[in-house]
Amino acid sequence: MTSFRASAPLTPDAAWQHFDLSVADGVATITLNRPDKLNALTFEAYADLRDLVAELPHRDDVRVVVLTGEGRGFCSGGDVEEIIGELRKLDASGLLAFTRMTGATVKAMRECPLPIIAAINGVAAGAGSVLALASDFRLLARSASFAFLFTRVGLAGADMGSAYLLPRIVGLGRATELLMLGDKLDAETALRIGLASELVDDDELAGRTSALARRLADGPALAYATTKSLIAKEQDMDLAGAIELEAVTQALLMTSHDHHEFLDAWREGRRPDWKGR
Amino acid sequence: MTSFRASAPLTPDAAWQHFDLSVADGVATITLNRPDKLNALTFEAYADLRDLVAELPHRDDVRVVVLTGEGRGFCSGGDVEEIIGELRKLDASGLLAFTRMTGATVKAMRECPLPIIAAINGVAAGAGSVLALASDFRLLARSASFAFLFTRVGLAGADMGSAYLLPRIVGLGRATELLMLGDKLDAETALRIGLASELVDDDELAGRTSALARRLADGPALAYATTKSLIAKEQDMDLAGAIELEAVTQALLMTSHDHHEFLDAWREGRRPDWKGR
Amino acid sequence: MTSFRASAPLTPDAAWQHFDLSVADGVATITLNRPDKLNALTFEAYADLRDLVAELPHRDDVRVVVLTGEGRGFCSGGDVEEIIGELRKLDASGLLAFTRMTGATVKAMRECPLPIIAAINGVAAGAGSVLALASDFRLLARSASFAFLFTRVGLAGADMGSAYLLPRIVGLGRATELLMLGDKLDAETALRIGLASELVDDDELAGRTSALARRLADGPALAYATTKSLIAKEQDMDLAGAIELEAVTQALLMTSHDHHEFLDAWREGRRPDWKGR
Repeated sequence: MTSFRASAPLTPDAAWQHFDLSVADGVATITLNRPDKLNALTFEAYADLRDLVAELPHRDDVRVVVLTGEGRGFCSGGDVEEIIGELRKLDASGLLAFTRMTGATVKAMRECPLPIIAAINGVAAGAGSVLALASDFRLLARSASFAFLFTRVGLAGADMGSAYLLPRIVGLGRATELLMLGDKLDAETALRIGLASELVDDDELAGRTSALARRLADGPALAYATTKSLIAKEQDMDLAGAIELEAVTQALLMTSHDHHEFLDAWREGRRPDWKGR
Repeated sequence: MTSFRASAPLTPDAAWQHFDLSVADGVATITLNRPDKLNALTFEAYADLRDLVAELPHRDDVRVVVLTGEGRGFCSGGDVEEIIGELRKLDASGLLAFTRMTGATVKAMRECPLPIIAAINGVAAGAGSVLALASDFRLLARSASFAFLFTRVGLAGADMGSAYLLPRIVGLGRATELLMLGDKLDAETALRIGLASELVDDDELAGRTSALARRLADGPALAYATTKSLIAKEQDMDLAGAIELEAVTQALLMTSHDHHEFLDAWREGRRPDWKGR
Repeated sequence: MTSFRASAPLTPDAAWQHFDLSVADGVATITLNRPDKLNALTFEAYADLRDLVAELPHRDDVRVVVLTGEGRGFCSGGDVEEIIGELRKLDASGLLAFTRMTGATVKAMRECPLPIIAAINGVAAGAGSVLALASDFRLLARSASFAFLFTRVGLAGADMGSAYLLPRIVGLGRATELLMLGDKLDAETALRIGLASELVDDDELAGRTSALARRLADGPALAYATTKSLIAKEQDMDLAGAIELEAVTQALLMTSHDHHEFLDAWREGRRPDWKGR
């Protein structure tokens, strides 16, 4: 994205300590890297995720974000000792600071103009399942699964926006069942009910993810960014407002380089050379 | 639920005259009991349902509600002679009092913090199908069916909130077809489109319902109650508001007995002993 | 619909120049008629559609609308040279006038009290796919397909209300994928995810469409019209408001001829003779 940067410098890639970040050819890949804990989150990992997602759109070298996990799991949610155990020591103010941080991570993901692909390589549980919901694409390995297991630890099944997002993805009935009970949902069922974009064999996940990321990174980035933004916002708008927002947005896009490039390429019988503006 | 009771005493179970009510081990079971009429509703049954659902959360001995029907039907909706025939005699004020009462029943079900299981043992038609929609879980016997048959009696397919609830459960396209035409929907199709949580053989419905009710009654009731409440409310909220509501709710739940109990049990390698607070 | 007409006369059927319009036995059939271009839309076709849809409810002889295409395609969207090429010549004001016109067409379809059947005989692409979304019923020929191909021409996938409508029909996850990527969606998949009401062999589409149109045209028109209107409006309302709107609407319908006719017919053991009022 072309962006208006303030004085603060961008955080160097290697400065993010609580996951691996690699940026190459327009694709930023965030890999949760505590495989022995199925990539359970810590306080620090949440804070890093929240701020990285806010920062990525300000970089000129990133057009798409991939979120995945190392090892057998995608993300098993908040670590029992490192999060639940530590939360026990906090007062109301501290607890709210924590829950607002986790919610802010999801809000940042939904407001991020870059498409986010969750490459779900294994179990996505608790907060991990909500990070998947907040992504735009969910590519699922056959061995992956979901578990919105909040009630199983005595908490509300509504966490980090799950009770907003899940009903809008799979419908109110299925979402109620999943969030109330917190049962495991296998990959086949997730695909069938529209919770996954695609289901692939485990050893094909990396390849399929790369191919989709490549396609998005090489495509008309401004078109993708506005599509994502309007889909997100129009969940909260009425029909007349949504149609007006689409009308003014599309009128703007009709003046863009990429739309002009489409017509030129079409007339010349060649593939468009997208610039993302 | 722990509750703040006003001066009026609770209605004795046996005082509800227009269905059977039994309360045992935390489960309140409402059985519509006019099997020869497929449990068609009367004016009095609506009024009793509306007020019972509002009262149940004030009792200390109820944690989950089951709604089912006696005999071959679940609920065939408003009785033709006893409701439609009688409505003919009413003026505008009387008609509106009736439609507001039926709507208030659904509103009470959606606002009730207790999980509601509809054990749909047979046909759920008209108002009966909307009572099913207003429940949190829909367990379907194989011989059950739905019919939103309002247009077939010359009325709007939008009744008691059906045009709000059904599109959010099965999507706008399928809901339009079902509500406009009022055709019968068999149990297999209902399951496939997300209108049912589960489909079981007829003779297994009672057992499956008991098992789910037992699980909910024995579980972390405050977690379930907040999950239900937030799912319902967030259908009407925007993303930022929903995330904030979840953050403050979850911070509160983090101070609850049951969440602390989870951690203690986990550390001690035993099952949590949920108290529901 | 009984309506309050202003001074301007109705447009004669033959005056609509940019599609074929036929009205017979209560059914208005709009046939896009540029089969050699897969019925690509032009500026003039949009303007005619917008105004015809607004006018049809004011006629006494129309109870249901059918939208279909001649030849192999349903509607391939905006013509590349006649629309995209011409848009290049417009300034911001002209572009916005165009996008508002296309959005106004969808808004008119959603606000039209007559049920609209899209008989999708072939490819529905770009604006053509959104016209299908804005319809109430989508009957799909086996050879039909959808393609929300806006990003493929460098524009936002949110066009004419697609980012409002599609997530509400197929869920947020599937809609994101379809609108971001613009890939072709075959008829079987469209049926499976709830984007189509029904899938029929190509040579059965006309017959099935006629049968559904006949049923709707012969049925209780006021009941259908209020059902459609409330489904559309309640997408933008909260539960309490929706229930109140349904209560007052249904109280009104209870005074209608058709509802009284239902009871009379039921008592006399005959079929109702619907009058549509």
